[in-house]
Amino acid sequence: MLLPLENITLIGAGTIGLSFAALHLRSSASSIITIYDPRPDLEAHVLSLLPNYLPPTHPPVPTLFSSGRLVLSPTLSAACTLSTDVVQEQGPESADFKTSLWPQIEALVSPSCHLWSSTSGIPASVQSSQMTNPGRLLVVHPFNPPHIMPLVEIVPSPTTPEVEVEVASYYFDRIGHSPVVIGKETTGFVANRLAFVLFREACRLVQQGVVRAEDVDRIVEGSIGLRWGIKGPFASYHDGGGANGLEGFLENVGRTVEDVWKEGEGPLEDGWKEMVVKQTESAYGPVSPQNFVERDRITRRVLEVIREEREAIAREKAQGDTASEEK
Amino acid sequence: MLLPLENITLIGAGTIGLSFAALHLRSSASSIITIYDPRPDLEAHVLSLLPNYLPPTHPPVPTLFSSGRLVLSPTLSAACTLSTDVVQEQGPESADFKTSLWPQIEALVSPSCHLWSSTSGIPASVQSSQMTNPGRLLVVHPFNPPHIMPLVEIVPSPTTPEVEVEVASYYFDRIGHSPVVIGKETTGFVANRLAFVLFREACRLVQQGVVRAEDVDRIVEGSIGLRWGIKGPFASYHDGGGANGLEGFLENVGRTVEDVWKEGEGPLEDGWKEMVVKQTESAYGPVSPQNFVERDRITRRVLEVIREEREAIAREKAQGDTASEEK
Repeated sequence: MLLPLENITLIGAGTIGLSFAALHLRSSASSIITIYDPRPDLEAHVLSLLPNYLPPTHPPVPTLFSSGRLVLSPTLSAACTLSTDVVQEQGPESADFKTSLWPQIEALVSPSCHLWSSTSGIPASVQSSQMTNPGRLLVVHPFNPPHIMPLVEIVPSPTTPEVEVEVASYYFDRIGHSPVVIGKETTGFVANRLAFVLFREACRLVQQGVVRAEDVDRIVEGSIGLRWGIKGPFASYHDGGGANGLEGFLENVGRTVEDVWKEGEGPLEDGWKEMVVKQTESAYGPVSPQNFVERDRITRRVLEVIREEREAIAREKAQGDTASEEK
Repeated sequence: MLLPLENITLIGAGTIGLSFAALHLRSSASSIITIYDPRPDLEAHVLSLLPNYLPPTHPPVPTLFSSGRLVLSPTLSAACTLSTDVVQEQGPESADFKTSLWPQIEALVSPSCHLWSSTSGIPASVQSSQMTNPGRLLVVHPFNPPHIMPLVEIVPSPTTPEVEVEVASYYFDRIGHSPVVIGKETTGFVANRLAFVLFREACRLVQQGVVRAEDVDRIVEGSIGLRWGIKGPFASYHDGGGANGLEGFLENVGRTVEDVWKEGEGPLEDGWKEMVVKQTESAYGPVSPQNFVERDRITRRVLEVIREEREAIAREKAQGDTASEEK
């Protein structure tokens, strides 16, 4: 039996912290979210940024303050108490900062409090090196922005007990996100590793004059991005292999796959960075906050219809099964 | 001035051929699609498969036959005539087959007929080697299934005149697809190259026990698939770099990116193929035709809402601009 986690403290009120605050607030009508950040303008900052992350029907931030559902904490010791269920950290990406932070937190919270870091790169085994019970800490790495994007990579250290992995997975699964447990601590975890190797090949092709940066974007949007947003690469290649599934796929196109792998080896030639930066800037101009608003609006709708269609398909299947049983 | 292309001959009635037939039929209410395939059961085959690719509101296949909009041709010479606007080939993926086919077609059609190959790997420069005017041929490589997926990679040979590239781009753009011109003939063109390098890293991580095959799928679906289906990698990293755009992104995470690239070098260890095949089969079981129906249903809806939201955003911007001008 896993208990709900309702008393959550966030360390760090950057965009990731506030996006998680919105997610945790939405997760339950009675959750209490405490935010600790040493910045002097914390209240004004939260009041200006957090509303962008909450759904329009959600109680507004001043109401959350007055009802006690959202608490700003001036000190670490007020934010981390014996009644805290989870401390989730998204402070500066510095091993020194995190390594010295966790023993302080460990001394303030109860032994049953769950300790999560949203780091994008510093493994739990490094962050926890000064803790009394280092196995307690695990990484819950989101894909930005976490209040919208479903993926949460759950990355335990080698000493993290299984139950901590289950608690974190259960929590994010229950609130409709997509937690995935990563078996070993690796540089960049998994999503970014996959993204970065594709990005390298994209930079290589741009540098070789095969394709322009903005055309790479249109190519990916109209093919593998769209496809893999609905059905990931292994499932898609399995579908694409005929009766023999993935094995058939690897037989049919294995030679081309291996040729591409061979050609894509080796470091990029000097000048690649300047070239892709120049093409990207000239295609898209300066980054505007409106970019995120538009991207997130489309993403929400896409997630909505994927969910709707999957539910409709499951319902139709269930009805079909009932119909056949009745025959 | 580019003329509409209404008289299109398809060589090869496999799934790609019939999917293109559906796309071309939808492109104009007066287009005439001729299909040549030596298979003896061609009519029964088209009657059974093509309806799956047409929208429910489209005239049914027997009506298309009786009205002359869909023509089945028993011979190449009946399929390729002086009134054919385009011949599009998706026969066997064999250089010998294609190389000997094109001179026959060239002798049948008018000099202004456009010649396209849907090949996924044999460049136009190879296919056209026996032609009188080899520059006429170019590759229009779709992402399967072409009646749904927007991408069409337009890959000219080094001798293809610019106007042939423009005609093909204009055609697919006008019917709502996403044609992208590839600057040089490369193994696998671009979309598959990008996909295959990501797939290699995925196989490596599965083999190393970092993640299971089905978890790779969930990771990609909930992060880069979803994101890149809406906004490709260069635009996304540009957004992610703060005020300095892509340059800022490369400064911030450049070290992790380079570390991942270094770790991802070198061939996969023996046994990777058996491992990913086994995990994929055990996760998804045998491939069923239902898989495609569900995938395509969700994909159509996702494309619909992406288009709706983009149009709404553009409308709101236009109204905003008008409003500011009125002030």
